[in-house]
Parts: sequence; structure tokens; C-alpha cells
Amino acid sequence: MKPMGPVPPEFADGDVLTLGGRAATAWAAEAGTPCFVYDFAVIEARIAALRAAMPAGLDVHYAIKANPFGPLLDAIAPRVDGLDVASGGEMARALAVMPASAISFAGPGKRDDEIAAAIAAGVTLNLESEGEAARALAIAGRVGVAPRLAVRVNPDFELRGSGMRMGGRASPFGVDADRVPALVRQLIAEGADWRGFHVYAGSQALDADAIVEMQAQTIALAARLAGAAGAAPPLVNLGGGFGVPYAHGDAPLAIGRVGDALARALAGRPAALTSSRFAIELGRWLVAEAGVYLTRVIDRKESRGETFLVVDGGLHHQLAASGNFGTVVRRNYPIAIADRMRAAAAETVSVVGCLCTPLDRLGDRVALPPAVPGDVIAIFLAGAYGATASPAAFLGHPPAAEILAGAAGAADVPTGNAEP
Amino acid sequence: MKPMGPVPPEFADGDVLTLGGRAATAWAAEAGTPCFVYDFAVIEARIAALRAAMPAGLDVHYAIKANPFGPLLDAIAPRVDGLDVASGGEMARALAVMPASAISFAGPGKRDDEIAAAIAAGVTLNLESEGEAARALAIAGRVGVAPRLAVRVNPDFELRGSGMRMGGRASPFGVDADRVPALVRQLIAEGADWRGFHVYAGSQALDADAIVEMQAQTIALAARLAGAAGAAPPLVNLGGGFGVPYAHGDAPLAIGRVGDALARALAGRPAALTSSRFAIELGRWLVAEAGVYLTRVIDRKESRGETFLVVDGGLHHQLAASGNFGTVVRRNYPIAIADRMRAAAAETVSVVGCLCTPLDRLGDRVALPPAVPGDVIAIFLAGAYGATASPAAFLGHPPAAEILAGAAGAADVPTGNAEP
Repeated sequence: MKPMGPVPPEFADGDVLTLGGRAATAWAAEAGTPCFVYDFAVIEARIAALRAAMPAGLDVHYAIKANPFGPLLDAIAPRVDGLDVASGGEMARALAVMPASAISFAGPGKRDDEIAAAIAAGVTLNLESEGEAARALAIAGRVGVAPRLAVRVNPDFELRGSGMRMGGRASPFGVDADRVPALVRQLIAEGADWRGFHVYAGSQALDADAIVEMQAQTIALAARLAGAAGAAPPLVNLGGGFGVPYAHGDAPLAIGRVGDALARALAGRPAALTSSRFAIELGRWLVAEAGVYLTRVIDRKESRGETFLVVDGGLHHQLAASGNFGTVVRRNYPIAIADRMRAAAAETVSVVGCLCTPLDRLGDRVALPPAVPGDVIAIFLAGAYGATASPAAFLGHPPAAEILAGAAGAADVPTGNAEP
Repeated sequence: MKPMGPVPPEFADGDVLTLGGRAATAWAAEAGTPCFVYDFAVIEARIAALRAAMPAGLDVHYAIKANPFGPLLDAIAPRVDGLDVASGGEMARALAVMPASAISFAGPGKRDDEIAAAIAAGVTLNLESEGEAARALAIAGRVGVAPRLAVRVNPDFELRGSGMRMGGRASPFGVDADRVPALVRQLIAEGADWRGFHVYAGSQALDADAIVEMQAQTIALAARLAGAAGAAPPLVNLGGGFGVPYAHGDAPLAIGRVGDALARALAGRPAALTSSRFAIELGRWLVAEAGVYLTRVIDRKESRGETFLVVDGGLHHQLAASGNFGTVVRRNYPIAIADRMRAAAAETVSVVGCLCTPLDRLGDRVALPPAVPGDVIAIFLAGAYGATASPAAFLGHPPAAEILAGAAGAADVPTGNAEP
């Protein structure tokens, strides 16, 4: 038997898994399986906890890339202060629900048409290089608008214990810190509306001390760069890095400690940043735990003494759970039988998807209550980097339905996946 | 500098990369970047080499999962003896270009509606378990048709040196060999049209000896099972396993040696298989080397002494090249500047995609001629498990165009990716 991660607290209690006030099996019956159900109450709880923990006045941005599902974006937008996008496609979605002044666009390979659209709309571009800065200034000249430009900084530190390190080394992301002051001076001299700094040093960290240290380093770096540039940044985007527990042994990030330390850091911040606003941008932390992937057992088979539950879903919908996206060591996401959450684990089984490839393993030798064809399996932590971060066309199966459950004003009905 | 794999021989000569008789840069200009171009002449050359190497009478099947692009499938179908599919969606595509009697459907999680459609159409189901056999017989009873059923065998050996092992262990795929004879007897007793055995012991092997050994073991196993079942299999599908060179140090599979050994093995096959046909099913080996992913340099940036070429493509189109799909150790696929194939490598650069994630690295510290924004980069080995095996919706970028070049009767024009 191999361990699996913890079921998110909101789903860990009842015997029947309930999403947005309704049994998971009822959602599965109505929408068909496989489907993703996102429980908006969990997202609201995360936002409320974050607001309570973080210092007053800190802006909270949602990074759309984690989950761009339309109804979910509609419901989140009014509850955050900004949206961060990573493509022209994401920008178009963001502009439908948020003023351009609260949208920023990061990413190392922005095409000219994306830059032009952002400048015309008034979206802030987080510049990833001097070359991109030159293109943005040239395009702004043609568009005839003072472009809103922030500088993404490749910091000289990284987020310790991060699942994905993005600082402290040569990087496609951002301008090396030592070259930033000259670039800021140039942007201002050329008439751009300089919006400040964006620093993103890593993601998926569960250690509060590591986040605290990174935020303190980021504030110090921003002050140093502002001093050297001779200009106060209107906004310092401190990045994210807040992780969620996916695997056995993972514990939730202590956001109270992060918020307390950040409050102290901002209260004592250097004079160069007195007038600056600060933001954090979170994707995964806001939405990952709210999502559950529901898939139905099609076959139960024995092979050489092992038992396999073959389900109608797979890595074409939830690649990350198969351990094939950005992870070196495969670890089991939390998995349960949706209507027998508290039944004793009575056997060790592997939960495999319907794809004809050995990569398609959603649970590797996990302990579960006995299950038979027809049972609905819940795979948790499916709210971020799920439906859109998976190879949906692989092997020609239908896409998964996506449902936002429990959002006031949002339709509590299945919505087909209309992603491209 | 890190090494990269070998450019496929058909593309390794000229200074200007030519696909289907036309410069890659011309395709890129017409279709826009990023795009996949599949050169049908390379596929035809593979099929011809295979026919020449393999014993006369051996059936060659194409496994659609490797590349289901419509025009490519249309062009391949008349040149092979059968198609193997892995979903109802793939089956529908296959039925449009091939008689049902030459189509087989494998995969561990076939839904009832897929089984019913296959039986009604006359497609052979490769049964993955006794449970699936029972469902197929029950559904056939309702449909009122004698179902065409083969038994997929979980063999008691594996393909040595295989990139993906699928035998010799507990498996979601196939029925353990020792239980197969009873199942065959049951299928025949219940009136099914028993089609034979399917054995797939692994994939992506470059060692001819390993393939030879696996094929010999498969023939011996099929004979043993036929003897025990008291029935001669109409077809023995020997599986595939033929690998292609992706990385530095990889050498092409010596198919001549495989074919010679197979001819001897079939000539001397046990009496139980005298009347049987034999097939091999290949996906990757037929199409991988024919495909090139073309992507344009958007930015060239320096960071801490390293140079990055940021391109307009990325892992959302070609996940495998980023090392994030089924590989433990990342190795560089072959990469070139499309119009300067023979120019001397003059610098070490990393080729990174446009996605805002450190996972999106298509070439890690490769040696290339100097490149600037606007240059077209060719990433080879993109013909199999590319467009459909990548998370196309990730970060909201447009899909890549796909083009079949050089097929008589096929349109030599860009075809938008109409994949779901």
C-alpha cells in the first residue's frame, strides 16, 4: 500500500461526499462522468481566510492560469482585487469581468498582437526582458497610448522548498535585478505609465518561513531597485508561492504566520516604498482544494494478485494526478469512494484511467473501501491545473464536463467544457 | 552544453529544411506559427522499408493514437492492413477510412456505449478482462450480433529495454496468460466470433534483439494458449514496441534483423498456429520522424550569462519535447534553425516556450547557430504523441495548425487543428 494525500477539510467529514450542498453522486448522475465539480464555498472560505490573515490594504490577485473556467472566473472576479493573465486568450476572459486597470499580463513569449491588444485595452504588461520592453514601447507608439508597463524582476533569491523554483538563477522570466533600474528609467523617460515591479520566485511552498523570507527579500529588493531607479513603484507584486497539500505528509501552509510577518514587513518598509501598494497573486492556493474530479468505475479486475479499478476518466482530464506533469516522483493525490467516505479501507487497489497507456494511473496501490463497477470515485485537489492542463484530445475520448457548484448567481447546472 | 538527439535522416542533409518539397519557413509563413508539418514521404518511406524487411503476409496495423490527424489518417489507411483504436472517438475516425473487419479496439476502460458501437459495426474488441468479456457478450446479446472478440493477453514476459513496459507484471491491460484459455473457450461456447490474441509487451525499444526475443516469446505464448484452449487463433497481433531515436546516443532500430528473425520464427511456428495470420501494430515508428514542430523566435534574452530563445510555441502543443510526459530524465529532442541547418553551432542557448511556467523548456542548453527574433525553429520527432498528447488549452493560447505535406490526393494546404 502507498499513502495518499489528505482530503481537503471541507470534504473530509460526512460519509457521503457533498459538493455545493449536493451529493457528488447526484452531480455525477446529472452531468455524466467524468466531470469536475468546483465547490465555490471552498473558494470563498479560502478568500475569507486570506483576507483575515493578510494585512489590510494588501491586494489579492487571482492568476487565471490555475483555472480559467468561465463561471468560476465570473464568481471569483468580484472577490479579488486583480487578475493576472498569461496569454491574449486569458486576457480576453479577464477583460470581460474586471477593469483593465486591475489586470496584468505576464509571460516570456508575448506576441506583438498580444502586446498591442493589452496596450490598447489598458492592461498592465509585466515585461519579461529588455527586448519585450522595446517592442512594447514601439507598439505603444503606433497605438498612440502611454502603455501601462511593470517590470518583472528575476530576483537574486529563490523560494526555498518551492515545488517550482523561478528565481536565483538564469531565467526566461523577468529582467535580471541588476539591469532593472536602467530599464525603469528608460520606460519613464520614454513616456510609459510605469506600474512597478513583479517578482515571482517560486510556487507550491508549504513552509511559512520560506514564504516569509521570500516576501521580506522581495520587499528589500523592490526598495533597492526603486532607490537605484529613482522612482517609487506604484505597485509591488510579491508573487505567490502559497502551496496546498497534495500528498501524504503535506501540511497546510500557515497563512496566519505569513500574514503577520508580512504586516510587520510592510509596516517597517523602506522609505522608497512608502507610497507603494502591494499585491500577492495566487492561483492554485485559491482554487485547487475546491475542485473534485469524479469518475466512475467501469471495470474491476485482478491481475497477478493485484486489483485494478478501471475508471472512465484518466490523465487526459487530470494529468497532474497521474504524476506526469512537473513532478519527478509520483505521489498519490487523495482519493475516495464518493458515497462511502468513512467506510473502512478494506483493500489495496490501483485506480487506473481508461487510456490505453501505462501512464494513466490515478491512484497507485491505495487503500480504499471495496468498490465495484458503477461506483463514483472522487479524486481531490482537482481545482487547479486540471481540465486545461491536461491533454484533452489524447486518444479521442470526450472532454470532461465542468460544474461550478454553490455560487450565488452562477448556474448550478453542468456546463460543458467549451475550452478550445 | 547538453546534447540533443539525431535529426531524422530525411531532414539532415540540406541547409534549408524542406518538408514535402517546400521550405519549412514557407510552411511557417503560410500556416502561421506554431504549426506541425507532417511529411508524408517520410511515412511512405517507413512503410516501404517495413514491408521490405518483414516477412510476406505479415499484416501491418497503424495505431491511431500516435497521430489521429484526419488527412494523415486518410493517407495512411490505404497503405496498411488494419487500424488499432483506443476509444469510441478513434473508432469513428477509423471506420471512415477502413472496413470494420480490419479495425481492432483495445483499452482497459471501454464504456458500454463504446462496446455496443464496436459490436454493431463489426469492429474487433481486444478484451482486457473477464469483466469486459462478460459485458461484451451481454451487449452483443442485446444488439443481436455475434461479436468479433479477441483476447488481449497480459504476457508473462516484458519487452527488455522498453521505454514503457506493459508485460511481466500485474497490469490493467489484458487477461493474465494463465486465465486466457478458459476465457477463449467461454467466448467460443457463447457464440462469439473469436478473432485471436493481442499481446503488447512494451513500446519504444531500439534494441532489435529485445524485439526479436519478445516476438519469439509472443509466438510461443500464443501457441501454448491456443493449445490449451483447443482453438486456433485467426489472428495473432504481436504488438509493436518499435522505437525511434529521440535523444543523443539513440540509434535506429535495425528492422532488417527484426524481420529476418520474425520470418524464421513464423516459418518454424508451432502447429497450433499454422492457420493463423500475424500482425504487428505500429504507431510511433510509422509517424514520429515525419513530423516537425515549427515555432518562431519571439525574443532573445540574456540572463545571468545564459541565452534564451523564447518561441511562440511550447509544451501546450508539444508536451513530450519538454520532458513532461512519461519521461523521468529530460533529454533534448533534435532542434535546428529551419533555414540554416548546416550553419555551425556557435552558441549554447535554451529554447523556451511562451508559457509562463518553468516547465516550458523545449531545448535545454543546446548548441545552435546564432538565432534572432523571427527565425523559425524546427523541433523534430513531432509526428507522434504531439498535438493530441499535449494540453492544448493550457494558458489559453491558440492551437497549433497541422499540415500534411506531400501526400498525393491530400490537400497541401494548412489545416486548422479541429481536435476537440
